[in-house]
Amino acid sequence: MYNKPPKVSIVGAGPGDPDLLTLKAIKAINNADVILYDALVSDAILALAKSETELIYVGKRSAQHAYKQEEIHELLVKYALLFGHVVRLKGGDPFVFGRGGEEMEYVRAAGIEVQIIPGISSSIGVPGSVGIPVTHRGLSESFWVLTATNKKGELANDIHLAAQTNTTAVILMGLNKLREIVQLYTNHHPSDWPVAVIQDGTLPTQKVVTGTLENIISKVQNKEVKSPAIIIVGEVVSLYQEPQLANFSKEFQYHN
Amino acid sequence: MYNKPPKVSIVGAGPGDPDLLTLKAIKAINNADVILYDALVSDAILALAKSETELIYVGKRSAQHAYKQEEIHELLVKYALLFGHVVRLKGGDPFVFGRGGEEMEYVRAAGIEVQIIPGISSSIGVPGSVGIPVTHRGLSESFWVLTATNKKGELANDIHLAAQTNTTAVILMGLNKLREIVQLYTNHHPSDWPVAVIQDGTLPTQKVVTGTLENIISKVQNKEVKSPAIIIVGEVVSLYQEPQLANFSKEFQYHN
Repeated sequence: MYNKPPKVSIVGAGPGDPDLLTLKAIKAINNADVILYDALVSDAILALAKSETELIYVGKRSAQHAYKQEEIHELLVKYALLFGHVVRLKGGDPFVFGRGGEEMEYVRAAGIEVQIIPGISSSIGVPGSVGIPVTHRGLSESFWVLTATNKKGELANDIHLAAQTNTTAVILMGLNKLREIVQLYTNHHPSDWPVAVIQDGTLPTQKVVTGTLENIISKVQNKEVKSPAIIIVGEVVSLYQEPQLANFSKEFQYHN
Repeated sequence: MYNKPPKVSIVGAGPGDPDLLTLKAIKAINNADVILYDALVSDAILALAKSETELIYVGKRSAQHAYKQEEIHELLVKYALLFGHVVRLKGGDPFVFGRGGEEMEYVRAAGIEVQIIPGISSSIGVPGSVGIPVTHRGLSESFWVLTATNKKGELANDIHLAAQTNTTAVILMGLNKLREIVQLYTNHHPSDWPVAVIQDGTLPTQKVVTGTLENIISKVQNKEVKSPAIIIVGEVVSLYQEPQLANFSKEFQYHN
């Protein structure tokens, strides 16, 4: 065991549905000696690990201990040297606001092999799963993925820029800034500009709320939407349809 | 067979490496009666289909026939009604410039059930796999995913906007516009602003070229990079390191 070469895999676990893991992520999880995981990794995904794999929660909102980013860095190196293959499992994609880049740099500086396994990012996969395409001919030829706040907790500067464009904006970790975001967009867009908010995307607890700059805040309150949630602003949101049962229309019946 | 309810799954096949398929995509492929696939779906992925599944190439650059988008729409509905479960398999994520939204709308209008299965988008997964994080603290707090050209074949308007910001720009299908993109960025950024070009990301034929606004064009020519390739512009590219063998540094050895 102690002769196993140290290695760290930084792995995206996708938005929550275990079926949205990649084969490569599943193989890494199966092969792990230690898994360090975040709050956004679902129980169903952790259940895929072998029984002898050590599972360590390093989410920053742990009851017992609030892990600092630096402590996580040190644990990655320590456990790789002690036990071999460490899988760092993160919700979504590890490089989309996951601080995976910092972990890669630290582990690499320690001379330890690092592998990156991308995951389905919530920014694309969550709207996509419910039928909101981030790009769509005639509506949006690009999309911009942003986090709501800067390090100081203020509305991020890039959101000010995005609000001046017609690109699809996908804003992560922004629910508690929704009022400011709506205000900002209202300076540049009509009040019926579409907005969606999706909580717990791809999980059984998913909630989808769509509306406009004018009514999204009250709709989100009425539906008691909570974090983690993503916000999508832009005309592509208008393509959303409530799920419904398949319903044949006769004109499309195929006559052979 | 003819009583099977019609259904269309619009499925992302990821950037190319079959291990980057999701479990959900694999299950859909295994369950498909017919698969309609594009040029960017690798042979290794098609090999996962059952032998009795009908595989139909509808890439737009087919030798025998250039499929129009409208023909693909009609085939989706026709085969679903005739055979049951049609999987529409697209490289990357089906909603990132994949015209998946149009296919969803058409099939839905025909009263047929549509399921969307997101895939690893090349825009995030290709730079990620080689160690270029699209976001990174202190370098980029957002990323903007763009296609190089508008419908007229001109440089897309959103690229003009992106070039005025410091966000990470990920430009798909842009290799033949590289010179114009570099010119545009040079108006707003220093000549040592980092740029990467990655051909055939995650496949054995992958080529990674990194440089700056000043030298990326000659580097891409020297390495004979060809489409499909993605372009990443922004400071996160500076984190790229050539792959190397693991090499312990003594200061990080863990002493128990």
